[in-house]
Amino acid sequence: MARPKLQFWFEFASTYSYLSVMRIDTLAADAGVEVEWHPFWLGPIFKAQGWDSSPFNLYPVKGAYMWRDMERLCAARGLPFKRPDPFPQNSVLAARTALLALKHPEGPAFCRAVYAGEFGEGRSIDDPTFLGQLLSSCGLPSALVEEANSDAGKQGLRDSVAEAMRLGIFGAPSFIFEGELFWGDDRLEMTLTRAAA
Amino acid sequence: MARPKLQFWFEFASTYSYLSVMRIDTLAADAGVEVEWHPFWLGPIFKAQGWDSSPFNLYPVKGAYMWRDMERLCAARGLPFKRPDPFPQNSVLAARTALLALKHPEGPAFCRAVYAGEFGEGRSIDDPTFLGQLLSSCGLPSALVEEANSDAGKQGLRDSVAEAMRLGIFGAPSFIFEGELFWGDDRLEMTLTRAAA
Repeated sequence: MARPKLQFWFEFASTYSYLSVMRIDTLAADAGVEVEWHPFWLGPIFKAQGWDSSPFNLYPVKGAYMWRDMERLCAARGLPFKRPDPFPQNSVLAARTALLALKHPEGPAFCRAVYAGEFGEGRSIDDPTFLGQLLSSCGLPSALVEEANSDAGKQGLRDSVAEAMRLGIFGAPSFIFEGELFWGDDRLEMTLTRAAA
Repeated sequence: MARPKLQFWFEFASTYSYLSVMRIDTLAADAGVEVEWHPFWLGPIFKAQGWDSSPFNLYPVKGAYMWRDMERLCAARGLPFKRPDPFPQNSVLAARTALLALKHPEGPAFCRAVYAGEFGEGRSIDDPTFLGQLLSSCGLPSALVEEANSDAGKQGLRDSVAEAMRLGIFGAPSFIFEGELFWGDDRLEMTLTRAAA
């Protein structure tokens, strides 16, 4: 029998996506659930809500809290945490590259490597050289970075954003099971329970 | 030895506060933690962030998701759930009354009764007669509703909002342990673990 399948929608600039990216494959394997990885870009979705930056920058009190919350959650989970500068990072190239990487079995490992660099070490993820190194370290061709900026690579991310909007996704991380939306790393367990039922 | 003490800040119009109000005393007793109940009012705090209504009304996509999320969480916890109309409810009278009720040991039971009416049955909580009935059913004098609208009653809620702002509270429910802020029903377990440590 086919395992139940979950869609995992994540944005490379998103702090809470880091938390889910680093644990979803382990938790899903334990629950017997298959994960489909969907990198996307929140820029146009936030713009449609009237936001021209991360809501954590637009609402500084909420932003200050988010950094402390991330510190606590990362400490509790044994994850390194370092704030990248600037925040949010420009995540477009990473997302385009990940869409290509995810056509290979090493795709999820590449995504984890990008987040580990960005939020574990505070590295900039708009640097093609850095992304190329991460691809190589995961056993993927570093030339995927250049391919990411081809017309087809750009269209890949456009299609992904359009599909996210069609699904009603408004933030990251988000999980979709049987058309139903679950938002936030805090809902990962509930989604897996639902999918495994 | 004195038990560790947690501050619980909640707003009577807040859906996610309903979730915490209905479970905090049980979870805290299990953890050996004492709970100080602090009703407050988000109106002036949201206004300071540029919002003149609930963010769930200002951002309809997020609002639609919140209602579905609440349905799922209430179902999972065996809590009845019915959306009050209008949302958000005017919570000022309930908060002023609760501040007086909480000077008695029956205060938390009164708060639970208000939320059970509002979000379990969809009742309006700005109705003094309804609030008086709930007070009586909890063994408290129904005259607390009139006292709530006295100068002292009004000042009580003003003081509570000022203290919430001083603590950096920007949403509800919030928990404070040793000066540190935890936001959202999703953080109740983490706060209790921290307090009990």
